[in-house]
Amino acid sequence: MKNQSLHGTSPVTTFGPKACMLQNPHAVMHIQDPASQRLTWNKPPKSVLVIKKIQDASLLQPFKELCVFLTEKNMIVYVERKVLADPVIQADESFAAVIQRFCTFREDLDDISNRVDFIICLGGDGTLLYASSLFQKTVPPVMSFHLGSLGFLTPFNFDTYQSQVTQIIEGNAAIILRSRLRVVKESREKNARVDKKGIIKTNGDSEGSRKVLNEVVVDRGPFSYLSNVDLFLDGHLITTVQGDGVIVSTPTGSTAYAVAAGASMIHPNVPAIMITPICPHSLSFRPIVVPAGVELKIMLSRDSRNTAWVSFDGRKRQEICHGDNITITTSCFPVPSICFQDPVNDWFESLAQCLHWNVRKKQNYLSSKEDVF
Amino acid sequence: MKNQSLHGTSPVTTFGPKACMLQNPHAVMHIQDPASQRLTWNKPPKSVLVIKKIQDASLLQPFKELCVFLTEKNMIVYVERKVLADPVIQADESFAAVIQRFCTFREDLDDISNRVDFIICLGGDGTLLYASSLFQKTVPPVMSFHLGSLGFLTPFNFDTYQSQVTQIIEGNAAIILRSRLRVVKESREKNARVDKKGIIKTNGDSEGSRKVLNEVVVDRGPFSYLSNVDLFLDGHLITTVQGDGVIVSTPTGSTAYAVAAGASMIHPNVPAIMITPICPHSLSFRPIVVPAGVELKIMLSRDSRNTAWVSFDGRKRQEICHGDNITITTSCFPVPSICFQDPVNDWFESLAQCLHWNVRKKQNYLSSKEDVF
Amino acid sequence: MKNQSLHGTSPVTTFGPKACMLQNPHAVMHIQDPASQRLTWNKPPKSVLVIKKIQDASLLQPFKELCVFLTEKNMIVYVERKVLADPVIQADESFAAVIQRFCTFREDLDDISNRVDFIICLGGDGTLLYASSLFQKTVPPVMSFHLGSLGFLTPFNFDTYQSQVTQIIEGNAAIILRSRLRVVKESREKNARVDKKGIIKTNGDSEGSRKVLNEVVVDRGPFSYLSNVDLFLDGHLITTVQGDGVIVSTPTGSTAYAVAAGASMIHPNVPAIMITPICPHSLSFRPIVVPAGVELKIMLSRDSRNTAWVSFDGRKRQEICHGDNITITTSCFPVPSICFQDPVNDWFESLAQCLHWNVRKKQNYLSSKEDVF
Amino acid sequence: MKNQSLHGTSPVTTFGPKACMLQNPHAVMHIQDPASQRLTWNKPPKSVLVIKKIQDASLLQPFKELCVFLTEKNMIVYVERKVLADPVIQADESFAAVIQRFCTFREDLDDISNRVDFIICLGGDGTLLYASSLFQKTVPPVMSFHLGSLGFLTPFNFDTYQSQVTQIIEGNAAIILRSRLRVVKESREKNARVDKKGIIKTNGDSEGSRKVLNEVVVDRGPFSYLSNVDLFLDGHLITTVQGDGVIVSTPTGSTAYAVAAGASMIHPNVPAIMITPICPHSLSFRPIVVPAGVELKIMLSRDSRNTAWVSFDGRKRQEICHGDNITITTSCFPVPSICFQDPVNDWFESLAQCLHWNVRKKQNYLSSKEDVF
Repeated sequence: MKNQSLHGTSPVTTFGPKACMLQNPHAVMHIQDPASQRLTWNKPPKSVLVIKKIQDASLLQPFKELCVFLTEKNMIVYVERKVLADPVIQADESFAAVIQRFCTFREDLDDISNRVDFIICLGGDGTLLYASSLFQKTVPPVMSFHLGSLGFLTPFNFDTYQSQVTQIIEGNAAIILRSRLRVVKESREKNARVDKKGIIKTNGDSEGSRKVLNEVVVDRGPFSYLSNVDLFLDGHLITTVQGDGVIVSTPTGSTAYAVAAGASMIHPNVPAIMITPICPHSLSFRPIVVPAGVELKIMLSRDSRNTAWVSFDGRKRQEICHGDNITITTSCFPVPSICFQDPVNDWFESLAQCLHWNVRKKQNYLSSKEDVF
Repeated sequence: MKNQSLHGTSPVTTFGPKACMLQNPHAVMHIQDPASQRLTWNKPPKSVLVIKKIQDASLLQPFKELCVFLTEKNMIVYVERKVLADPVIQADESFAAVIQRFCTFREDLDDISNRVDFIICLGGDGTLLYASSLFQKTVPPVMSFHLGSLGFLTPFNFDTYQSQVTQIIEGNAAIILRSRLRVVKESREKNARVDKKGIIKTNGDSEGSRKVLNEVVVDRGPFSYLSNVDLFLDGHLITTVQGDGVIVSTPTGSTAYAVAAGASMIHPNVPAIMITPICPHSLSFRPIVVPAGVELKIMLSRDSRNTAWVSFDGRKRQEICHGDNITITTSCFPVPSICFQDPVNDWFESLAQCLHWNVRKKQNYLSSKEDVF
Repeated sequence: MKNQSLHGTSPVTTFGPKACMLQNPHAVMHIQDPASQRLTWNKPPKSVLVIKKIQDASLLQPFKELCVFLTEKNMIVYVERKVLADPVIQADESFAAVIQRFCTFREDLDDISNRVDFIICLGGDGTLLYASSLFQKTVPPVMSFHLGSLGFLTPFNFDTYQSQVTQIIEGNAAIILRSRLRVVKESREKNARVDKKGIIKTNGDSEGSRKVLNEVVVDRGPFSYLSNVDLFLDGHLITTVQGDGVIVSTPTGSTAYAVAAGASMIHPNVPAIMITPICPHSLSFRPIVVPAGVELKIMLSRDSRNTAWVSFDGRKRQEICHGDNITITTSCFPVPSICFQDPVNDWFESLAQCLHWNVRKKQNYLSSKEDVF
Repeated sequence: MKNQSLHGTSPVTTFGPKACMLQNPHAVMHIQDPASQRLTWNKPPKSVLVIKKIQDASLLQPFKELCVFLTEKNMIVYVERKVLADPVIQADESFAAVIQRFCTFREDLDDISNRVDFIICLGGDGTLLYASSLFQKTVPPVMSFHLGSLGFLTPFNFDTYQSQVTQIIEGNAAIILRSRLRVVKESREKNARVDKKGIIKTNGDSEGSRKVLNEVVVDRGPFSYLSNVDLFLDGHLITTVQGDGVIVSTPTGSTAYAVAAGASMIHPNVPAIMITPICPHSLSFRPIVVPAGVELKIMLSRDSRNTAWVSFDGRKRQEICHGDNITITTSCFPVPSICFQDPVNDWFESLAQCLHWNVRKKQNYLSSKEDVF
């Protein structure tokens, strides 16, 4: 059916015999059905960034195998310098020749965001979060291997990596666009400076904003007492958070910290933002899900006696003072994550494997007496 | 910004220097930004259906006032016959002349779905659910008044009804399209018949399907023991529900029964379907949110010893036997619900008023010792 | 330490230099430390009731083995008549001679409560609930075998039943006293009769009351709409339940239906009663735990339009009408349940096995980026 | 009934015709029914400690009034020195004469634990937590006034303080014994030292232990990643906590931080300890309630890469390193808290006032269609 997609059926726009929706061509979005999204290449990919979890000895052998394989395929392999600093890698003489052909870079110093065609991650959901942080604008397609147990973000098993990688390079893959949040922290000091000089400094994507794939967290940091933070949506104060903090997450992040704080789990194809309080004082402060297009803003409440702390995908923790504000919107630069099967099956597989979602004993532990006699 | 809407920013479709999304024009949806959706009229509305909660004496006076007002505006007023059967209405001689000009109908017998331009509800969320049930295909715009306390679906206060109604009739109103679920129940018997005759009977919208605005519930009915039901998504078994039942709800329904069963609350502009277990045996059976475009199917598990029961927005309860299946998709006939302010403010207002969402005492009940000294 | 027990340390009764607790010898309880409770026999046990889950073919062989074993030990074996009605048992000629030596009885017709020294259950938590229902006053010690997976109430594995049963018969066993609730339902009709005749009928234990081991449930029964029920504690109205119902459970029952409805889990040695709402309308209606000694009363609210239904350990479902009341107190007749190891280890073992309590993948699914680099 | 108390009925100790409980006189506790506990005085109280929340201007006038009243009653008033350091108090010349008659002390430097007959708290639950911390062994009776909104621990309204205080001094008051936890932190360093010297240092109550009235919290402190901590009960590892932390609370503390983390609420007369995970990774990690008499121990897991932090009633935050352990038992020194009405009514009143427990709109927001027609 042509008007059916993963987003749902296109709703009719006439209502009863005489009413209809006021047409507004400027407010129309054209969205390709997420279920049919597939990767293709304008030109054959040449450069591949390999991300490996460090301090995990079990990954060394797969890492080396993969690099040799890619090199033999005439790919240019990018590796972060500190990955190669591992003494075990240094000691491996047979690998030295391979390393020489690598392009290396240093995080926060070298910008590789326009030089990488393709990313391969080895070893846990954290590697994809890390990959996301390296690409603040457009993100190359990412293929993620778990080496042990399945992760939410690492659907591929390494056993058959050769055929799997080959297939991707040849452009045959379903992808899921994992939305990211664009977060801008503006501090009182900057605002003050702007006022004096009369210059309004725009925070471009490359500078003032950060992209998060899982969540932004505002919490009480090292304090044992509690901050009050105000939460605004499209400019309106919607509530005040009193408790340990608040999590603003993507659907991808709904199965990470948010689920631990009590959230429902949202499939990554739902265009939404989840707001989850952390240990709220109020018994009625249930998590909420809002449309992906809203603008959220978080500030310390005027009467909050303490500061709060913000972190981005669990990193770059920093203090929020009175007058600072955190603005959060959906970024237009998602992470194109390559599916093992498809967006739906991959997700349910990871719910079961990673969260034991509704995994039960077959036998009924609530068996009542009526089951007996 | 032209690519910003309540659905979020249009994501980029190029990924790094060489990758992009395979274009598939057949799978593109054109969605107008929900935030900018406004009502208009092709022709001036002439007929209005007035729905009144019955057995509520406090509604009689507003009902009569409204009907007189509409009649004076030369609208044709439709009223269900049993509303007029109320002895108090019958006894009011001054109202008799007004009644004579009404068009009356009987539920399930008379089809008024193509004769009503506009709907006004008086008295509680149930009236909108009822209105929804009367219009299985296209639904005229609905304006809902609460007479006492605010409801999720009844944003208007009756005090200023004259100006409010006039404004709507003149075509000046923000609307929210509340998605509905299209539910088809197919029974074993029908399937059997089909097999014998070799004829496949299609369940058209008008016959075999029902639309629900809040939720479909499958539960244990009058039994004290538990049914096992299998839940399929796009043809794949995703889990088995063991417990009191399962709720499949729209975002509108997420703040009704689903929230009582532990769900997060979803803004009605998020294109999604919520699946919430009722008292599940498994501690890990958290509610999930899936894209609006999926097809869900519910069946009794093969080894379930009992039947289950299904209901539609709390009505039309019926048994599900082995071999029956319930198919659920998002309908293309939403309920165009007229906003009091706009979709966002209306929702947060009702969260606070109806669910006391995060309403707290200002004083901190968790005040720790460090607050003291 | 002599003042340490599973109930906690005896608290001091002097407070600062001059205050103390007013002594009230009439209000002192003498409680033996639950951790040290062991079974003994005044006289050697002679009669044993064997309870078997019916309609479970896998239990037939163990059942027969056990009966032969007990008969050979010169125990008198009591079996319910319908257990023997199973065609497979009837067909087993070799078993016919054993059966002839059984004492049989019929539920609700024959009272065996004073003739059984010892109870053995085969096959699931429901068997212990059933055993509990047969003994409304004192309950003989119960030994429960699970045949497949561990149950909360069935700690013993059948593999070594011979040595285990022998040990119990010789009087060597730790026991846990599982408290029961004494529930009395008084109906309007009875009250009316009493008023007219001026005679107050006392509901003795044997007549009007029921004992439940897990829970009393008051719910909406087959209705899809909701009852309002009032909950009184020691004569004071403490709250009104609006929702699907309310569960009043023992600590033993806290891991049954109550946990599915969101309750915390209470060790059976805590002297308490748990009150858990089922799908409450109010987001703030959290479960509560009250002291074991209170008297609870449940009635339909005066303005409730519907009736409600009550059930006892999932059985004997009946309607509650306006004017009826359900009175619930802790019974002085607990179920002495024989431990496999001891009350603490048995409980944590069953939490893990039956509810997968905090059973996790070793690998951290929330691994943050900081875990990576 | 003589065997009825708030702890429940004394259970029978004979089970069926022949079984009974092995008598163990050394393991019997004698507990006075909590419902009948009343305060009395060996000698008339002479000294009263007044605790005032600092930095709260609204409390100054009530504080001064109360002190004048007590002085006129010839009570010796104890006040912490920093309370008097408030400039507003210093500036009040008329109060100077009253102050001169005060006994003052400094926290952590002066021990007043044997000199105070009676405690009065002004201004929030934190004042009672603070009072608790000053008395590590026996605690004088505490009377707590809220000045604004009711607190869980501050049942008295200040309006009628004169008659209320007089009544207490005359020995007429119901009390509730709020159990405390005795917490001992032993560090690796100490253990090492002990090993070398061969001397085992016992941690007496006055030195190594702390008493908490609400809870001990072990959490991740300022780290954004997670600690793994092992939880032992009576020497057995019962689970490993992976998440933000774990709360071990008294019933009094169940309505403080624990309820924010999802716990059920426990009446303070239930002899129990509550264990509540904070944002646990595992969906199935539900809070549990164990008997008051167990010994809990918390240690960092052997493979935990980070340290954790412990705090006591929200204070005295300190790091836990590998090898440290935290031992938690119920203290025999409860806080005798004076009731406004009685333990049951006071608690339900504070549930409603402080947590809005099940406070609802009368109108049914879930009103279904069947309510309508």
